[in-house]
Amino acid sequence: MVIVMKMGASEEDVQAVVKMIRQVGLEAHVSRGQFHTVIGVIGDDEKVMELPFQAYPMVERVVPIMKPYKLVSREFRPEPTVIRVGEAELGSEFVVIAGPCSVESEEQVVETARLVKEAGAKLFRGGAFKPRTSPYSFQGLGEEGLRMLARAREETGLPVVTEVLDVRDIELVYQYADVLQVGARNMQNFLMLKELGRQDKPVLLKRGMSATVEEWLLAAEYILREGNHQVILCERGIKTFETGTRNTLDISSVPLVKRNSHLPVIVDPSHATGIRELVPPLARAALAAGADGVMVEVHPNPQQALCDGAQSLTPQEFKAMMEDLKAWTSLRKPEGR
Amino acid sequence: MVIVMKMGASEEDVQAVVKMIRQVGLEAHVSRGQFHTVIGVIGDDEKVMELPFQAYPMVERVVPIMKPYKLVSREFRPEPTVIRVGEAELGSEFVVIAGPCSVESEEQVVETARLVKEAGAKLFRGGAFKPRTSPYSFQGLGEEGLRMLARAREETGLPVVTEVLDVRDIELVYQYADVLQVGARNMQNFLMLKELGRQDKPVLLKRGMSATVEEWLLAAEYILREGNHQVILCERGIKTFETGTRNTLDISSVPLVKRNSHLPVIVDPSHATGIRELVPPLARAALAAGADGVMVEVHPNPQQALCDGAQSLTPQEFKAMMEDLKAWTSLRKPEGR
Amino acid sequence: MVIVMKMGASEEDVQAVVKMIRQVGLEAHVSRGQFHTVIGVIGDDEKVMELPFQAYPMVERVVPIMKPYKLVSREFRPEPTVIRVGEAELGSEFVVIAGPCSVESEEQVVETARLVKEAGAKLFRGGAFKPRTSPYSFQGLGEEGLRMLARAREETGLPVVTEVLDVRDIELVYQYADVLQVGARNMQNFLMLKELGRQDKPVLLKRGMSATVEEWLLAAEYILREGNHQVILCERGIKTFETGTRNTLDISSVPLVKRNSHLPVIVDPSHATGIRELVPPLARAALAAGADGVMVEVHPNPQQALCDGAQSLTPQEFKAMMEDLKAWTSLRKPEGR
Amino acid sequence: MVIVMKMGASEEDVQAVVKMIRQVGLEAHVSRGQFHTVIGVIGDDEKVMELPFQAYPMVERVVPIMKPYKLVSREFRPEPTVIRVGEAELGSEFVVIAGPCSVESEEQVVETARLVKEAGAKLFRGGAFKPRTSPYSFQGLGEEGLRMLARAREETGLPVVTEVLDVRDIELVYQYADVLQVGARNMQNFLMLKELGRQDKPVLLKRGMSATVEEWLLAAEYILREGNHQVILCERGIKTFETGTRNTLDISSVPLVKRNSHLPVIVDPSHATGIRELVPPLARAALAAGADGVMVEVHPNPQQALCDGAQSLTPQEFKAMMEDLKAWTSLRKPEGR
Repeated sequence: MVIVMKMGASEEDVQAVVKMIRQVGLEAHVSRGQFHTVIGVIGDDEKVMELPFQAYPMVERVVPIMKPYKLVSREFRPEPTVIRVGEAELGSEFVVIAGPCSVESEEQVVETARLVKEAGAKLFRGGAFKPRTSPYSFQGLGEEGLRMLARAREETGLPVVTEVLDVRDIELVYQYADVLQVGARNMQNFLMLKELGRQDKPVLLKRGMSATVEEWLLAAEYILREGNHQVILCERGIKTFETGTRNTLDISSVPLVKRNSHLPVIVDPSHATGIRELVPPLARAALAAGADGVMVEVHPNPQQALCDGAQSLTPQEFKAMMEDLKAWTSLRKPEGR
Repeated sequence: MVIVMKMGASEEDVQAVVKMIRQVGLEAHVSRGQFHTVIGVIGDDEKVMELPFQAYPMVERVVPIMKPYKLVSREFRPEPTVIRVGEAELGSEFVVIAGPCSVESEEQVVETARLVKEAGAKLFRGGAFKPRTSPYSFQGLGEEGLRMLARAREETGLPVVTEVLDVRDIELVYQYADVLQVGARNMQNFLMLKELGRQDKPVLLKRGMSATVEEWLLAAEYILREGNHQVILCERGIKTFETGTRNTLDISSVPLVKRNSHLPVIVDPSHATGIRELVPPLARAALAAGADGVMVEVHPNPQQALCDGAQSLTPQEFKAMMEDLKAWTSLRKPEGR
Repeated sequence: MVIVMKMGASEEDVQAVVKMIRQVGLEAHVSRGQFHTVIGVIGDDEKVMELPFQAYPMVERVVPIMKPYKLVSREFRPEPTVIRVGEAELGSEFVVIAGPCSVESEEQVVETARLVKEAGAKLFRGGAFKPRTSPYSFQGLGEEGLRMLARAREETGLPVVTEVLDVRDIELVYQYADVLQVGARNMQNFLMLKELGRQDKPVLLKRGMSATVEEWLLAAEYILREGNHQVILCERGIKTFETGTRNTLDISSVPLVKRNSHLPVIVDPSHATGIRELVPPLARAALAAGADGVMVEVHPNPQQALCDGAQSLTPQEFKAMMEDLKAWTSLRKPEGR
Repeated sequence: MVIVMKMGASEEDVQAVVKMIRQVGLEAHVSRGQFHTVIGVIGDDEKVMELPFQAYPMVERVVPIMKPYKLVSREFRPEPTVIRVGEAELGSEFVVIAGPCSVESEEQVVETARLVKEAGAKLFRGGAFKPRTSPYSFQGLGEEGLRMLARAREETGLPVVTEVLDVRDIELVYQYADVLQVGARNMQNFLMLKELGRQDKPVLLKRGMSATVEEWLLAAEYILREGNHQVILCERGIKTFETGTRNTLDISSVPLVKRNSHLPVIVDPSHATGIRELVPPLARAALAAGADGVMVEVHPNPQQALCDGAQSLTPQEFKAMMEDLKAWTSLRKPEGR
């Protein structure tokens, strides 16, 4: 950490800061420039981060030097984390997760699970609890939906990925799901993250709609810190001024995460764009950029979907995309190896 | 709701959409332009919002006509809502809420409560649970902190505003608090909003960091819909590209909310800027723009604050600001009357 | 400037950077932390800014310490700059600039100039060249419009503020205008800024739609550096996710500019919001926040305006606003004194 | 265009709007809903866009139905535009444009041109005029730089792409360049766009840093409208809250442009990220998403580059990327065919 003093800071102002640093047992290096005095702090960053430097009127800025996360960093663990779920090896092969946005009926989920399996998907997704901006929209089937997802798994063998919307539902969802999903809106629900850090099932952590990659990795850090190291990151688009797509898929986040972390990272082009036709080219782009997989929405009949029909692939479209991806997979070079 | 068909949509495409509209008992007006056919839907917007128009490949866009909220709208209730807490009348007079960012000790809170009361504050704020981006930062004192806040109320008579961070803590916080605060990160925690909608104490709803005013009003709608009509909106800055301040105080949201809603709206210049010196001019600006109050951070000794010391006013600064505000209050014209 | 080396940087990597610094005659302080080595550079920041540190693979980050601007800074010139135009003293009293968005006819501008003068405006604004996103919109009257503005000045004595849209038109606009306006889209048109830096008339520099305050001050620096110290900054809203207003008025930028610069800063609530009803409360807020003035749109008949009618005040609304502002002005405390 | 009246609009309010529409010779369809009256306008959208609907106090919103651009749209011209420059066919094959950020010396540009040609690039890029946020940074070599670029073309046969920074330099740059580049900051410099629309050389139009795809296409419309149909769009990243990369590469814009326009679109991963290591995976992603090419920065010695060294590939890195791209090209499926 480096502390920049304001122009005109007196020797006394500088010593007040130095004193505070030494009180917690750390070392301070003072370096006087032509205009500004700069104080370097050497030692444990955790302790430093708690000190109220900013409250000193003559402190202009505090510049952190260390990355704020540890356990998720590639420096901490150089080799990639591989997470095994069913037949999928996330972090080692390119994995496709597919299914409907929301669970509507047993028939719908079982049919969809069958067809995505046949086309090559390795995990099945579906939402039983839906976060909706408006209180007047469909909110999901709840536990009944979870039971239907379990039925689909029984029928197909595909492990189930589903969202935990409320921290009070973790136990319930845990009983039915193979991978516990954290939605974008909950990425900084730190209490939920901690709770999930105490589970022994993988967590799929979606990036918050306006979170930086660093904040996303810090959210993952909350989970790892409690003991659960099985975290799959999922890029799902960030809020920007572009209105032609629902969100903006931050494709650069894939190689950026790979550089800074050992965790697997996948891409959700369905939520990122909200437009069905853009899903196949962006799934290819995700693969080319080094992602460990994609998660896409498929619906047997998008025109009757209770949510997000505009972004769901039809069974035919999904099959065509899977065949296309197969060809590209042969050229794939995972980043970060 | 207006549905715009793509160029080249056939009569059949148009009729498929019309049929769906009529099936739920609504009326459809088809109007054919030179290039696009447009279908107007007349009737209950709630039902319409559930229909999967976007999944029809020849639908280009769906344009909602009605505002998506009702109970919070000025059209629903033309006169302003006034919320009485202690001696404050939010929605009728200009109210100052003040206190430390986080509760650190009984001594600190009681001392701060006394001094803000003396200077003219009508409510006392303080955080017992703190949401922190990093798992390595101070997370608050929890129930112990709540007890200290209650002590401060006993000593001063000031009602207590404090944040509910976790939906599981509502009951606990309810026992100690007079106003239940929802933080920016929880603005779209819909399950928490619903739960708070069933309480009989006022809710202070902070605007999400990248929420629009419409999304914020929709979040309030979740609370009103469950029966609790005592909602105080709090503008606390939105995420922008400006780096000179922590967030960007959206001062326009004050008259905008007043135009569209009957709920009281206050401003938190401390969190919006993160810079102590900007708090007094922005508190004045909030008053001038028609806000119903401000919420500011005060700490007896900002240099020892465990959180956000840089934005906390000293007792002297707070006193000066209060005197200044008193003069301006005489000129105040609340918007929306 | 502080250079942070990556974890694992060797002594050789560090020395390569140190060597480069010393080659340009500057001093380097190396400080080795537990994880990272940090190199402080002492000396002239201009030279340092040109060095290609980022190209060294083991350099993690370069942290500038000095503010990147000089002539516009309060450190360079502690007392506020006062700019006299006609009877206005920008930087010393609260000044209202008013007029139509675009010049439509001589009658329109002369009539508007008369009525804004009568209500108390000290400068007259009007656009002869209009930047329009669509090539199919009204683009302004050009030189004919400038002549009409000059007529309005003749009739009323009000100095004229008008935009230079094209660097090739500076000479032309100079002949007719008293203050040369740079629009938001040209804030980083550096060649135009330099040219305006060689003129002897004041420049009104609007903030770019997604510029930070620092970038805005750097743009002003371009003008001052060429010799023209008469720059009036104008906050006109920044691009955010809020859709209820056209842009988001960054009210905090007013006290922030006042803290960091000696230049006068005014606010344009008409363009910031695009909504007529929000103009008066935001003009009041600008005054309360310490702005040196406001610039607002007035049209004798907004329903016939060729541009931006929705945000133009009627003569009656303008008059009411001026009376209201007069009362508030008595309480005004300019920031930065 | 659809005009939504406010709740409570009287018959008179509605008729005033209808009258205005009919006065310009267009047809108005009035449709009365339960809460709102909606007026559909049928006819020429250009005329409608000029009408000041928003100035009518009882008009709530104006919803445009048509896309605001024409000549650039796929509806206007269904088959893709192919632009031939030297041996490249932009819009038909995957083309790599490469070269240094800025021209530094004849030796540097000739050497770089040779090596990028050898590795397979089809066009050469280099900046003679550099837009810089700070007046204290290197601003480019100007005409001398253009002459050096011409030398590189003589030596290698590679056509030259270079930026026009100032509208007054178009003639000068035209003499030396094969493709005239418009930088992100000039994307809405409408006067420059019009001037370029009168040239007979291709224009490479970079997307503005916070422009939507629609605004970008509207900027291209300005050029086509004057007669120059040879426009190459270049996605170079948009401003977002992500700080790990310089900008956020909006990869979705590639298939989105292909859907809506016939113009070729390429990607600049160097400026989008500012990080050398991210350039190869993102170039692959661009190809996979259906882009018509990429533009990348290469420097013989990035550590001595006068600008943007951190994002320039070394000759070895560029060669490796080109070989990798060759393999992927075989699988390429251009979008929009």
